[in-house]
Amino acid sequence: MDLFFSPMASCLASRITSYESGIHLDFIEVEPVTKQTPGGRNYLEISPLGLLPALRLHDGFLLTGDYPILQHLAASSTTSNLVPLRDLDLDRLHQWLFMLGTELRHMVSVPLLDKKAADGTATHMLDFVVATLDFLNDQLTERQFLLNRFSISDAYLCSVLNSTSPTGIDLSPWPAIEAYYDRLLKRPSVSGAIAEELALRDAELARHRSSCELSLGGFA
Amino acid sequence: MDLFFSPMASCLASRITSYESGIHLDFIEVEPVTKQTPGGRNYLEISPLGLLPALRLHDGFLLTGDYPILQHLAASSTTSNLVPLRDLDLDRLHQWLFMLGTELRHMVSVPLLDKKAADGTATHMLDFVVATLDFLNDQLTERQFLLNRFSISDAYLCSVLNSTSPTGIDLSPWPAIEAYYDRLLKRPSVSGAIAEELALRDAELARHRSSCELSLGGFA
Repeated sequence: MDLFFSPMASCLASRITSYESGIHLDFIEVEPVTKQTPGGRNYLEISPLGLLPALRLHDGFLLTGDYPILQHLAASSTTSNLVPLRDLDLDRLHQWLFMLGTELRHMVSVPLLDKKAADGTATHMLDFVVATLDFLNDQLTERQFLLNRFSISDAYLCSVLNSTSPTGIDLSPWPAIEAYYDRLLKRPSVSGAIAEELALRDAELARHRSSCELSLGGFA
Repeated sequence: MDLFFSPMASCLASRITSYESGIHLDFIEVEPVTKQTPGGRNYLEISPLGLLPALRLHDGFLLTGDYPILQHLAASSTTSNLVPLRDLDLDRLHQWLFMLGTELRHMVSVPLLDKKAADGTATHMLDFVVATLDFLNDQLTERQFLLNRFSISDAYLCSVLNSTSPTGIDLSPWPAIEAYYDRLLKRPSVSGAIAEELALRDAELARHRSSCELSLGGFA
């Protein structure tokens, strides 16, 4: 299956899940600005809304969104480090995925990373998230993972926490979250995925710089 | 099971699902401003984040969020108007729930209804949603429901569309969405749920007015 992604975004959760589950994915990078894929095709022709990540299933259907993709991968996993969906408390899993996807990611990461957002949006959105981070910190104080053991909700939370650095959110007031994130970073799936995506993002930035220099050269 | 809710919010989807499935729920209204429940208890003591809707399960666990609650109800339904989860294309169901919950509801309804949001937020967020509404309109042009027949994703979309009126979004540029919404409004579960919640909201507004008049009276 093909996974369309951009490095160091929420797509990271799908990569971690692929590495944990052993499910092979072909990763196809989409340039954030030009929306070009390596084959030179415009991603908007493949996915009209340009949503990432997107998983092209075996029947050709393009499945978009972290939550649906993570659940598809978990449902496909048989023997792996990832708990199959049937062995999980689905209510609690759904609750975590929903809370991370709405209260945390979409209330914080999206507005904070969106440079066109109105002034004041970032500060206002941060007010919302303090209570959620307090709640998360309480939940993680006495447990290693969000559920009984590593699950797709941890892969998702990892991608959210990974985005706190560019958003300028300091996690030190929430020590249980910091300790949890440190534990996750020691997992080979997580450290491997982040190292790969960092390298891809650096390469992307270098391409972008070089293309800007070429454009500027045209004016010299 | 108890469902904590506020009238005419996204909680409406849980009420519609309850009526479609025949699963009995005890509805407990939470005052939006004071967070009081009819028993005089502060809802924040029950749910620290104050999230609504919340479903108190038989084992006492408080399940929060539209998406997890709707899935719990669908999983509990046996013979009803609601398609049981096992008979649905779960990938497509998850995709719709995710898209409605993130791209539509949280990108639009939440910022537009949030009076403390920075100026310009509403207009900026509307830009995002036009493409999503175009996509939704295309999808609904040749089908009656989001999936093969009425499902929890329709109940959820109904609650989102129901909130477009106070947000000032005019749906007339998307005729397939308008026609779909009109069809939904003809379902007894939907018209019944909306009529009940409208009456509850009017009663709530009347209580609020009367309490404001009492406060103002104190200054006279």
